[in-house]
Amino acid sequence: MPTTTTTRAARIIARCRELAQISDVRGQTTRLFLSPATRDAHTLLQWWFRHAGLDSRIDDTGSLRVTRPSRKPIAPTLILFSHIDTVPNAGAFDGPLGVLIALAAIEELHQTPLPFHIELIAFSEEEGARFSFPFISSLAAIGKLTEADLARTDANGVSIAQAITDFGLSPAHIADTCALPANTFAAIEVHIEQGPVLEADDASLAVVEAIVGQSRFALTFTGHANHAGTTPMALRHDALVAASNWIVEVERYAANYKQLVATVGRIEALPGAINIVPGTVHVTLDVRHPRDESRHAAVAHLLTKAEAAAKHYGCSVSATLISEQKAVPMDRALTVHLHQAAERTGHDAKSMFSGAGHDAMILAQAVPTSMLFLRSPGGLSHHPNESVREEDVEAALATLLNLLLHLHPHT
Amino acid sequence: MPTTTTTRAARIIARCRELAQISDVRGQTTRLFLSPATRDAHTLLQWWFRHAGLDSRIDDTGSLRVTRPSRKPIAPTLILFSHIDTVPNAGAFDGPLGVLIALAAIEELHQTPLPFHIELIAFSEEEGARFSFPFISSLAAIGKLTEADLARTDANGVSIAQAITDFGLSPAHIADTCALPANTFAAIEVHIEQGPVLEADDASLAVVEAIVGQSRFALTFTGHANHAGTTPMALRHDALVAASNWIVEVERYAANYKQLVATVGRIEALPGAINIVPGTVHVTLDVRHPRDESRHAAVAHLLTKAEAAAKHYGCSVSATLISEQKAVPMDRALTVHLHQAAERTGHDAKSMFSGAGHDAMILAQAVPTSMLFLRSPGGLSHHPNESVREEDVEAALATLLNLLLHLHPHT
Repeated sequence: MPTTTTTRAARIIARCRELAQISDVRGQTTRLFLSPATRDAHTLLQWWFRHAGLDSRIDDTGSLRVTRPSRKPIAPTLILFSHIDTVPNAGAFDGPLGVLIALAAIEELHQTPLPFHIELIAFSEEEGARFSFPFISSLAAIGKLTEADLARTDANGVSIAQAITDFGLSPAHIADTCALPANTFAAIEVHIEQGPVLEADDASLAVVEAIVGQSRFALTFTGHANHAGTTPMALRHDALVAASNWIVEVERYAANYKQLVATVGRIEALPGAINIVPGTVHVTLDVRHPRDESRHAAVAHLLTKAEAAAKHYGCSVSATLISEQKAVPMDRALTVHLHQAAERTGHDAKSMFSGAGHDAMILAQAVPTSMLFLRSPGGLSHHPNESVREEDVEAALATLLNLLLHLHPHT
Repeated sequence: MPTTTTTRAARIIARCRELAQISDVRGQTTRLFLSPATRDAHTLLQWWFRHAGLDSRIDDTGSLRVTRPSRKPIAPTLILFSHIDTVPNAGAFDGPLGVLIALAAIEELHQTPLPFHIELIAFSEEEGARFSFPFISSLAAIGKLTEADLARTDANGVSIAQAITDFGLSPAHIADTCALPANTFAAIEVHIEQGPVLEADDASLAVVEAIVGQSRFALTFTGHANHAGTTPMALRHDALVAASNWIVEVERYAANYKQLVATVGRIEALPGAINIVPGTVHVTLDVRHPRDESRHAAVAHLLTKAEAAAKHYGCSVSATLISEQKAVPMDRALTVHLHQAAERTGHDAKSMFSGAGHDAMILAQAVPTSMLFLRSPGGLSHHPNESVREEDVEAALATLLNLLLHLHPHT
């Protein structure tokens, strides 16, 4: 049954919206790791897989996996992947779109022979919403989900291991059932951008060059809490003014530093009374850059500036590292292949960095990996109104299909 | 029994510290309006008053009042006053010091004839801690405590009227028992500065020229909440950066504007996640100046700057007036008398403005009123470590005594 260009993209979008009906919370799209909705999502996806003539299995972290074999039994394997868990009150496309574009590509191939197997993996856990710990299933796929990780508990005190058991799976078999095939030669994830860059550039697609590295800090500015009426300006040690001066500098510096983003997302001023000069201010800092050296230089600069701002207003400041994550470059050859595939189908894919984390940065530790981004209308992400354009879905599908037809395991 | 200079100041301080032992909360000094500790404080003060040969009465808002009559029965009345309620976990001197310096002055007068009666009032309520409504007893003294005020309730749902009744007093008699004497010609309050100005100037005393006017606003900066990783700096609408830019401007402007203080005491950034660009920021603004026109000009400037800051970062801002209070000038003639009295006793009293509210600004609406400030070591106020220096207490007592000896009702 031939489909028109519009129809195949529209069907992918319709499937995403259908999957978005499956939720742990009525009236939302909320699918947490190994929740009841996860099982229902598996059932729907398995129905679509069977419809495409594909048999699926569920590995022991609850990821749904299906293989489209090459005619050559000893061929290597290409992984196509994304995830089907969501943040609370999510949109329909963050994760599922990558799974359903991959499925559509496999469907479009029909009987076309390829020199490699394709394994499509719908990872069960990427967002980290249930256990405040992301990438559970992709870590399992590269053999890096530890016993300590499995002991982490959710808000109800249920451990990851227990959640796996409760779902009818076996923590003891994770190594066997979750590992990527030993002959995997490449892994590709299609995902929405989750940001405004492609829309601002009026572009459909981007190939991801790297997933940025990240440093997070907690800072405390300390001055003196004083009476707002009786303390002249010249005798104040206002921790909020010091912090504010620094927040402005964080923005100014990052805005003038190529590819750097720096964010103060949380702030608390104490004692927090309308008529008391703040004596203590707690803030957070999130710094990201595709080059680790640049990130380190930026962090050093910003922490120095915090000291200068504190000193200028008669305050002091302390900073504590909360977490740090190195930049993960995508595979250079795969990235070039994706650009070429886009070009061959008439699309000019941009090169960009992913400012958010993805399963791709986990798999990249084990196999050559790359990502294809689709424009996020309005830059909306992690929001029920998250959307995609049909033309962009078609561009991504055409690019992926073209890649599959041109990719050779050893080139 | 003659006392040395040091002894009489030391005795005042000792009495304040004795009174500070009387508290509603064990281990603190916390005396709320008409609480059990208020009754105990009355008992102790009445003991001291009797010791000085003075009979006291309690008016129907619970203020303790004592009169030192002139020998001339139809003489006018000078009011000496301060308050004996406290904020939670207070120091020993905010309020009681003024009452006990006034008592010491009356004691020092012995039989010295004066051409006026002195009424010493220990107001029962100035801080507003119990009913979130200050100046209850001084408002009653000038006949401005309304029925609506009496209906206000505390955290337990008890009204002011009920609290008065529960204390054994009568709301119906407030007009009769609380009013200032009709022949009152002046009112003077001695109080700690509650700020760092006198200490910074190495001075003991100040005469208050005016109690500053005050404007309070709530502002909301509105931008867009966005992903901290995927949103480039150039595409952000960061409400916290906009608010921070403005907070720095508030400080800079006030620091360069004579006698102005402006404070941002509260801030809340939403959604308040380390990895989300803040989309909404709520802040408060407190602006005070002894001249109302200057305060209005400053407010207009700062609100305009808030709009400029918001616009600069692609945000908007709205501002709501929370409260406004006009500046209250102290009586010019009384202020001059206080300066002259200080000078005659060898003290150079500074002229300053009170940045905090006081009962004096209530009484000033009805009778000529002025205030004498004593240095607050460390600028400490509303804190258990609040203190006074003996030399400053002596300076204040000597000044007040000298004033009493030189003051003539119709000069």
